[in-house]
Amino acid sequence: MIDQRILPGRFEIVVCRTHQDVIAAISNMTVRGAPAIGAAAAFGLALAGCCSMAKNLPTLRSELKTASAELFASRPTAVNLGWALQRMQTVVDAPCASASDLKEKLLAEAKQIAEEDVATNLRMANNGASLINDGDTIIHHCNTGALATVDWGTALGCIRMAHQQGKLVHVLVDETRPRLQGSRLTAWELGQWGIPYEIIPDGAAGYFLHRGDVQKVMFGADRVAANGDVANKIGSYMLALAAHANGVPVYSVFPSTTADLSLATGAEIPIEERDADEVLGITFHGEPVSPQGAKVRNPAFDVTPHELLTALVTDRGIVEPPFDINLPRVLRAV
Amino acid sequence: MIDQRILPGRFEIVVCRTHQDVIAAISNMTVRGAPAIGAAAAFGLALAGCCSMAKNLPTLRSELKTASAELFASRPTAVNLGWALQRMQTVVDAPCASASDLKEKLLAEAKQIAEEDVATNLRMANNGASLINDGDTIIHHCNTGALATVDWGTALGCIRMAHQQGKLVHVLVDETRPRLQGSRLTAWELGQWGIPYEIIPDGAAGYFLHRGDVQKVMFGADRVAANGDVANKIGSYMLALAAHANGVPVYSVFPSTTADLSLATGAEIPIEERDADEVLGITFHGEPVSPQGAKVRNPAFDVTPHELLTALVTDRGIVEPPFDINLPRVLRAV
Repeated sequence: MIDQRILPGRFEIVVCRTHQDVIAAISNMTVRGAPAIGAAAAFGLALAGCCSMAKNLPTLRSELKTASAELFASRPTAVNLGWALQRMQTVVDAPCASASDLKEKLLAEAKQIAEEDVATNLRMANNGASLINDGDTIIHHCNTGALATVDWGTALGCIRMAHQQGKLVHVLVDETRPRLQGSRLTAWELGQWGIPYEIIPDGAAGYFLHRGDVQKVMFGADRVAANGDVANKIGSYMLALAAHANGVPVYSVFPSTTADLSLATGAEIPIEERDADEVLGITFHGEPVSPQGAKVRNPAFDVTPHELLTALVTDRGIVEPPFDINLPRVLRAV
Repeated sequence: MIDQRILPGRFEIVVCRTHQDVIAAISNMTVRGAPAIGAAAAFGLALAGCCSMAKNLPTLRSELKTASAELFASRPTAVNLGWALQRMQTVVDAPCASASDLKEKLLAEAKQIAEEDVATNLRMANNGASLINDGDTIIHHCNTGALATVDWGTALGCIRMAHQQGKLVHVLVDETRPRLQGSRLTAWELGQWGIPYEIIPDGAAGYFLHRGDVQKVMFGADRVAANGDVANKIGSYMLALAAHANGVPVYSVFPSTTADLSLATGAEIPIEERDADEVLGITFHGEPVSPQGAKVRNPAFDVTPHELLTALVTDRGIVEPPFDINLPRVLRAV
């Protein structure tokens, strides 16, 4: 996997030869992005199978149980991690001819999870690209590209698809403080694809929106409530407010698995506060950026109320308001 | 003067012994903040007088003319620099008994400029503090404290005054990308005064405003149009939008000299775009934050439309809407 901690300064591939290697890669954030973590964990369990010396099924299943628990603990808050390991567990528990048969089935299931993610993302990319016009300038927040998934990504996948369809697109990349996934990862991906972009401080988005320089705002989603409220990377809410105030459409792009219809509104989505070091662990021209012992508030996500969203782009189609009616309808249609 | 480039990591006093020392300090940003630059330039010209070997008035005036032009060129865009040097020039041009008499008068005028700045800021601080309630949490953007002026500052002066009056105030400090004046300077000043604060990424302000955690938003101004539109540090507009959307009052605090009644609206205020290095010249946990050759858009200011502002706090009083009527009235009243 690509080491996302040192991009864009260095491009290095980390080879995982054991499931412990995968655990380390997930917990130290070599790999990040919910779908990417899910696929990595699935391959991690497949690796645990491949590496096992077990000659019979009960021994192998016992070893896999331990490995799965270890993988699960590597990033306990990542939803896709549990989801992918649950799918792998179904294979572990299913009737099987032999230990070697199970090992092959686990590898096949991990490949299937990865391939499904790519297919899902391609459907999203096609749906979202249909909203993008030739010549559009788009503000994008955080990183939602191939790095965060198995390939293509979510919101960034739509932009990549529009570009691939021959549309001229131009991206203003929110640097996305505190972890700078925009300037570090999104800018790097856009550069790889040859899509023109400029990095902006998050606070500058309003300036460009007010000037009329921007035709679309696009970001991903970490969790979506039944009424269309979208929890996403911190800063998404202020971006959506500024777009809405200036009549610029706002799209949240996510796979149907990100919608949590058990939540009536975004108020029910728990928001994780993260370490102060994410905010203070930068230097400005080599100097520290805050007084010693400075306190920090660092919420990882905020909720964009559905009123600010023009449409939701999913792999199952584009959802228009009223979302409380249309989102469950579209997601349950398949 | 305090070296603002290395705060808060190090506190160092830079002693200027010649006007060339002052020119260097202004141009390399040892001192920043429009009123602080103005006072520094005035003392710079007084220093040029003190250092002069000229025995007669024509020679001294000729040397001062050169020094003034050099000082003016140190930061050509700073409005207060020209304003302070113009005031000093009036002294240079006034009838005078001798060279030594002029030298003394220049020093007296520089001291007067500095003292007037403190008095102006104290009036603003008292006006603004009257709006702050015991127990308020206030979001503050950029740096508007004593460091940016001769003492007290503008918006931060109001918060300091409320604290000194015994009110419990708590500040959420926008870090203020790209130059991080919030986390570097405002946090340091609040720490000096014993005012509790937490640093937040600029994009997190909306989260706290939406939760109802915040009672006021306060920032300064770089230029104010006759209708009350306020040009201020980039990010102010998005902050004001988020406050307005959540019913939280927004105050811009500035001396009457910052209002430019010749401009009908904020659309006439020119916005400077600054160097990409301000955005990219940071490291995140020691790693570069953007791909090599990444392009940047870096507008230094944005305009907050007057509709988003609850009141304008000046040294001549608090201005309520409609600003197009009340701002000229209050500023011309004295």
